[in-house]
Order: sequence, then C-alpha cells, then structure tokens
Amino acid sequence: MIILDGKKTAQDLKEEIKISVASIRENNQRPPHLAAVIVGNDGASLTYVGSKVRSCEYVGFDSTLIQLEESTTEETLLEKIKELNQDANLDGYIVQLPLPKHIDEEKILLAIDPTKDVDGFHPSNFGRMALEMDAFIPATPFGIIELLERYKIETSGKHCVVVGRSHIVGRPISILMSQKGSAGNATVTVAHSRTENLANLTRNADIVVMALGIPEFLTADMVKEGAVIIDVGITRVSDDRHPKGYVIKGDVAFDEVSSKSSYITPVPGGVGPMTIAMLLKNTLLAYQRKL
Amino acid sequence: MIILDGKKTAQDLKEEIKISVASIRENNQRPPHLAAVIVGNDGASLTYVGSKVRSCEYVGFDSTLIQLEESTTEETLLEKIKELNQDANLDGYIVQLPLPKHIDEEKILLAIDPTKDVDGFHPSNFGRMALEMDAFIPATPFGIIELLERYKIETSGKHCVVVGRSHIVGRPISILMSQKGSAGNATVTVAHSRTENLANLTRNADIVVMALGIPEFLTADMVKEGAVIIDVGITRVSDDRHPKGYVIKGDVAFDEVSSKSSYITPVPGGVGPMTIAMLLKNTLLAYQRKL
Repeated sequence: MIILDGKKTAQDLKEEIKISVASIRENNQRPPHLAAVIVGNDGASLTYVGSKVRSCEYVGFDSTLIQLEESTTEETLLEKIKELNQDANLDGYIVQLPLPKHIDEEKILLAIDPTKDVDGFHPSNFGRMALEMDAFIPATPFGIIELLERYKIETSGKHCVVVGRSHIVGRPISILMSQKGSAGNATVTVAHSRTENLANLTRNADIVVMALGIPEFLTADMVKEGAVIIDVGITRVSDDRHPKGYVIKGDVAFDEVSSKSSYITPVPGGVGPMTIAMLLKNTLLAYQRKL
Repeated sequence: MIILDGKKTAQDLKEEIKISVASIRENNQRPPHLAAVIVGNDGASLTYVGSKVRSCEYVGFDSTLIQLEESTTEETLLEKIKELNQDANLDGYIVQLPLPKHIDEEKILLAIDPTKDVDGFHPSNFGRMALEMDAFIPATPFGIIELLERYKIETSGKHCVVVGRSHIVGRPISILMSQKGSAGNATVTVAHSRTENLANLTRNADIVVMALGIPEFLTADMVKEGAVIIDVGITRVSDDRHPKGYVIKGDVAFDEVSSKSSYITPVPGGVGPMTIAMLLKNTLLAYQRKL
C-alpha cells in the first residue's frame, strides 16, 4: 500500500512554480498576479484566503487581498468585479465562497471574466473543460488528476466509481477521468444519494473517488483488494481528546480500508493540500495564456 | 415490450408547439424565428437543413435559410454570425456542420451568441447545463430525456450505461440522467472504446444508451431481461435488396434485443425524429426567455 502524499506533492508543485516565476522575474517581466476577494469576517474563509495569499508570496506571485465588509451590497461587489476584469496587471482572481446571504452567488460568478476565473467555476470554463478545450479546471479535481499523474497510476480502461455529483468535485472529476488523455480513459460511474446498492458498485471498482462529505462512510467491506482510493471528504468531528476539540475525518475509514488498497490518500494530507497548489498553477496558466 | 415511438412523440411535440405559436400570433406578437446557415452543397446537409426549415413552417415559426457558397471565407462567415447575433428579430440559429475544411469550426461555434445557440453546442451552454442553470440542451440528448419523460420510464436509482462519450450525445446525456429532476437521478456509467469488459457492464444495466456508431453492436447476450434500450446509432449499411442500395441500422441488433427489453427505440423512427422537434422546442424557449 502506497500513501498518496498530497502534502509533499503540493510542495513539489510549489517549488516548480517558484522556479518558473524566478525565470520570469530574471527576464524583467512582471510576475503572475492573483487577487482574492473576501466579503465579511467568516473565520474559516479568512484562514483559507490568508493561506492562499501566503502561498502566492512563497512562489513569488504578486497578490492582492480585497477585504470587503459583511454589509457590502451586490452592486458594490459587481463594481469591484468589473474593475478586476479590466485590470491588465491582474491574471486571475477568486471570490471566496460562501458570500453573505443578501448577495446572489450565481450572479457574481457569471460576472467574472472567464479568462481570469482561476477557480474554474464559471459555466464557460466548465463547458470548455467538458468539450476538451483549454480551460481552468477547478482546484480539487485538478489536484486529483495531478496526484494520479505524478504517482503514475494507470486509469485507462479501469473502472472508476465517483461517489458524489457536486459541481466542483464529483461532476468534473468524473468527466476528466473518462476523457482521453493523461489520468483519463477510465470507465467512470457517478454514484450519489439516490444510488441503489452502492457497496456493490464500489466493490467492483478499480478506483474509488469519495466526495460525499460523510465521515468514514467507505468501509473495508465496500472495496476490492488492490483498489486505488481517493478521499475528498473533510469533515470536522468532535473529539474531546484533541486540544482543538475536533478531528478532521475523510469519507473513508482509513485504518481498515488502507490495508486493502494499493494507493490511498490520507485525510488530512491528501487531496486537501493539492487545492492551493492547483490554484497557483491555474494562475500561472492564466499568465501564460495571456502572452 | 413497448416500442418508444419517436416519430409519434415528435409529431405530438410539434402539435403542442404549433398551438403555442398560434396563441402568440393571436396576441398579435411576432412568432419565434429560427435561422439556419449552410455553407457548401453537401447533399445530406442540404436535406437535413431543408427538413428543419419545413418543420419551422409547419409549427408556424418564421424561418430563414442562409445558403453560402463552398468558397465562403471564415471571415465572411464570422461577419454573417455577427449580423445574426445582433438581429433582434431572430431568436435562435444553427450553423449546419460539417463546415468546409478551410473554416475553423471551433472559432465559428465560439462566435455564436450563447442566448441564440439553439443547438446547445457552445461551451457556455454546455457548462450551464452541467451546472444545472437554464441552458439550451443539444437536440439528441434533449430528445432522449423527452422520450423517457413521456413514456414515464423510471430512472431514479436505476443503473444506466451510456456507451459513447461524444460531446453532443454521450457526455451530455450521461450528465442529464445523473442530475436531480425528471428523467434523472440515475446512477450513470460512461463506457467508450477503452472500456474493458463492456458486455459485463451492459448486462448489469437497467437502461442502456447506445451512441457508438457501430451497426448492431449490442446483441441479446449483452443485455439483461427487462432493460430499457435507447439506440442513438444511425449508420447506412449497403443492401442491394433495397431500392436506395442501403438500409439505416442502429447500434442495437433490434430483432434479438427487443424481445428481452421492456422499452426500446427503433431505428429509424426512435431518437432520430426527436432531434428536429427538440430544435423547435429550443427555439421556442429562446423566444420565451427573451421576453
């Protein structure tokens, strides 16, 4: 059994991006520039955005953090987005979700210039991805593809079961893995809350991608010997024995499933750390496509 | 075994659209207006476009046929598209494929205003469909959904195997059938040329959608008793016994598979006739969304 080390892989990727940026700077060109917009004071969102900004600094990107008050109107946010769309010195930006309830997330999303949409959430990017054109791929599925590639895991002709059909994980990863190309050509099944006899499906899968959000849902009896297990779940579970009062659990009962698997991502330290690295990669791609 | 009669269902749909148009005209409003652009003199394309125009007339739409010479440049075609995008009296239009080789199809497709893209081929529409926003759904998968709905075929929780991953049939139907909603909530597997042990997959499927383009590929031993069979294949096979010198074959060996199935689409007369009806429906939707 081999652990798919997302933390190390993400670090490798950051080092590679750092080298690209250094060479850009050596040529006296401006470095890639990512902006992050956050509305309100949600603790988890602030932590996450802060970590994105620090990663930008680490690899040598320019970064801009735009903090707007909780009471910001939809109109003001749309104004700001218009400004970011027009800023020639900005390659990509993200609008941290969730937004306050008085703002229509879909309206905001659709206002983002798709060529700067490094989160890959705009329908134009989703469609381009599905139709095999150049696109920005959302960070989580992009990170899974990167992990599969770097560990040289064979996907062609394999049966992959994706559990979960969300717009940002289940749906895109199912499309990417069944397309032609690297980490692709798999026979992919999308399962979800309405699926009957799920265990029977996962037991026959060569690769299982869990993106359900139910802690330790996938147990050893649900997987076949030698399966590849990708765990996208991240749920806080109360635990008094830990100083924080909780532990982070994935969708996979790691201890029992890992011994049956050939490759498995841990939680934390698997898919999670890959997401910020892929956001940086998308920003570099946005920069390069502009040239 | 029940035959899914696409010819009759398409006719029913046309009658319904005809009634909607009559009521629009009674209110002294202009009717929906569809334009079709064809470049060159390909016989099959001309026949197909002609049939679309006649269907428009039948339901009471305004229609415009724009025939351009084979030698038309990409620039001239892009000019024409710009004109159609700006025409306030035009609700939707299609550019008949294939285009002559000197014209970049992707460039043309991307130039079409997504709000007039009644073929649903623009990435913006594809992405909107996949992300469950209002969109134009390509005619063939839209026609399959319509057939499943009208025959009240249960899809929720059922295992559906889609054979083929094309941008205009396999991929979109697999997404639609696994989304929430009518004719949805199925557990969907996408199989393709790289799939190993396909017969094993189709034998366990409650619903099989064949969109491969190989005549009579699906045989009785590959399906389970009571399965629902949707056949998207349309291939001309030489046959001297027929006056035309060929017969149209689907991807399903109809005679042997039909007796095992619960519902099955014939070829011709199944999915095929639905496509023009769905193009008309998309044009009516474009008209209604504009109001």
